Amino acid sequence: MKPKRTLVGLPVYQPGKPLEEVKRELGLSEVIKLASNENPFGCSPKVWESLKEEESFTAMYPEGLAPELREELAGHLGVAPSKLIFGNGSDEVVQMIARTFMEPGDEAVMADITFPRYKTQTVIEGGTPVEVPLKNGVHDLKGMARAITERTRIVWICNPNNPTGTIIRREELESFLAEVPEDVLVVMDEAYHEYVDDPSYPDTVSLLDRDPRLIVLRTFSKIYGLAAFRIGYGVAAEAVVTELNKVREPFNANRLAQRAALAALGDQDFVRRCFEANRDGMKQIQSQLDEWGLPHFPSQGNFLLLDTGRPAEEVFQCLLRKGVIVRSGAALGYPTHLRVTIGNEKQNERFLDELAQCLGKRRD
Amino acid sequence: MKPKRTLVGLPVYQPGKPLEEVKRELGLSEVIKLASNENPFGCSPKVWESLKEEESFTAMYPEGLAPELREELAGHLGVAPSKLIFGNGSDEVVQMIARTFMEPGDEAVMADITFPRYKTQTVIEGGTPVEVPLKNGVHDLKGMARAITERTRIVWICNPNNPTGTIIRREELESFLAEVPEDVLVVMDEAYHEYVDDPSYPDTVSLLDRDPRLIVLRTFSKIYGLAAFRIGYGVAAEAVVTELNKVREPFNANRLAQRAALAALGDQDFVRRCFEANRDGMKQIQSQLDEWGLPHFPSQGNFLLLDTGRPAEEVFQCLLRKGVIVRSGAALGYPTHLRVTIGNEKQNERFLDELAQCLGKRRD
Repeated sequence: MKPKRTLVGLPVYQPGKPLEEVKRELGLSEVIKLASNENPFGCSPKVWESLKEEESFTAMYPEGLAPELREELAGHLGVAPSKLIFGNGSDEVVQMIARTFMEPGDEAVMADITFPRYKTQTVIEGGTPVEVPLKNGVHDLKGMARAITERTRIVWICNPNNPTGTIIRREELESFLAEVPEDVLVVMDEAYHEYVDDPSYPDTVSLLDRDPRLIVLRTFSKIYGLAAFRIGYGVAAEAVVTELNKVREPFNANRLAQRAALAALGDQDFVRRCFEANRDGMKQIQSQLDEWGLPHFPSQGNFLLLDTGRPAEEVFQCLLRKGVIVRSGAALGYPTHLRVTIGNEKQNERFLDELAQCLGKRRD
Repeated sequence: MKPKRTLVGLPVYQPGKPLEEVKRELGLSEVIKLASNENPFGCSPKVWESLKEEESFTAMYPEGLAPELREELAGHLGVAPSKLIFGNGSDEVVQMIARTFMEPGDEAVMADITFPRYKTQTVIEGGTPVEVPLKNGVHDLKGMARAITERTRIVWICNPNNPTGTIIRREELESFLAEVPEDVLVVMDEAYHEYVDDPSYPDTVSLLDRDPRLIVLRTFSKIYGLAAFRIGYGVAAEAVVTELNKVREPFNANRLAQRAALAALGDQDFVRRCFEANRDGMKQIQSQLDEWGLPHFPSQGNFLLLDTGRPAEEVFQCLLRKGVIVRSGAALGYPTHLRVTIGNEKQNERFLDELAQCLGKRRD
């Protein structure tokens, strides 16, 4: 019953504390969770309505290739339907990519610090993660290009980066791609894509046509507000998708998730409103932090990594006791930072109020 | 962009034809699907009602460890909650087991013919599937014990076996376990457990306490009628569960599936009614086949593998054109057989009527 060698010492992923768990543990009733970059506005009202169409089909397996959603999403993105692969969340697509393309001893280049699943999946496959430090919280693409060797199979780029929220720009990406050998895959994880405001953010889907090394990851868990359902996707050259399908679980994208995503995709007004509210909420929090002189990374996501100037765990626990769940930087490699999800206006106010108390700051 | 060597030539799993696909392709409206061993009675009416509790939580990630469902299910099974692991369907647990315990070059022993995912997952991990032919459609446990070598890490037993429906009995299993080395895992895939009628069927969960080599797989996709949601589980020693959790996707069991499973578990009356209807439907089909003299395996599941005496694909296509979807034995290794799911009484009648026409038989 020995597990394979690559699993020895591998930790289990620690997700943000669930609301229910905090309520249970602390006996609190008014808890707000700004820890997992979830959409504070829920999802489009069209989603729940659309689920009724599945009521008679609960006993039936989903269609593994999600033909209806595929067709709609392909139209929305302007790509061929054959370029899409769906996952049980885009984190499952991360797993499929590593499981398809990594052999033991292969290397994968990624940032230090970024979304931790690239590293975990690399290690499980017996690969070596080659981590290139961020520069001021931003992917160091020149350093990452230099880190590529003959053993490199995949470069992972999280854009915007989790947990810093920073982006790399179109020209930086294009210069980088010019240096990457042609047999190396470049995965652009764009879970927060729809929140980006900066016009220099690259349109990677349009690059796909001329660059079969690219895999673009997107999700319905963030701005679309469907994290409960688990559905995300990859966009890639058909040859890449064909290989990924070999390791895909036949029924990985559940029926309700497919239906929900279809409805959510059809309500771009909701997406636009969430985008605007996030932009406003980001300003609301940033301006208070600026007033207090607390540094934070320039985020293009729906979250902000801010430096409290104190041990993160202490501030995290203080907020938790007041019923505000954020993410402690301690677990993320930023020992004095907190990562806070942009909530709705009221949640942001409450966060700032409680943070002021925890840090002994004044709010005017 | 070369995939890893183990994927070369690996086929993509071919699921039973979805209802929607057949309707689309043939332009038929009255189609019945008896191809994927789905519950013809849907699921408990309590399930859909219970989903309302999730309406305000669509944007929130599920709790990865499914604490509420875990507690209830542990009580139902009479095991410690720490012995459970949930999957995006039990097929994901199959994947996790292979990914956790197989190293390249390791062997896994399984029946030929059985549920195909054991073999696929073994191959993806670089392992060698050692296939031991069924004897009269039944697992040959003596042959399987002889096939175990120093490289064997896992023995996969599907009980009842898919596609034959046959079971192995308690004494056979116990004699087999006495011969299996102590570092070899024995996976008992019991997806059809709740349909079994035969009192000699082993109670594997009770064996777990004294045998940490066992992993028992069960699912909510079959008798509970929740295939759409994707949720299944494994029961194993805590040390095994700990290792499996290292490769588990953090949010693999979606929120609605957890809620649905909880409600379904609470309605054991529904389960009992489905069990009884399946037993009646099995007799309904078997007695007609016996009358026609068509051989079939003694099934303890919710499906039947029958020998048409003709090329399976021909009969499959004939039924398909009449709007009855079954599973052709051709793809399963039984070139003259069909696997038919036991439907409701009316569906079974329709299947027998159309089969009679396809085979030129009379129905009295």
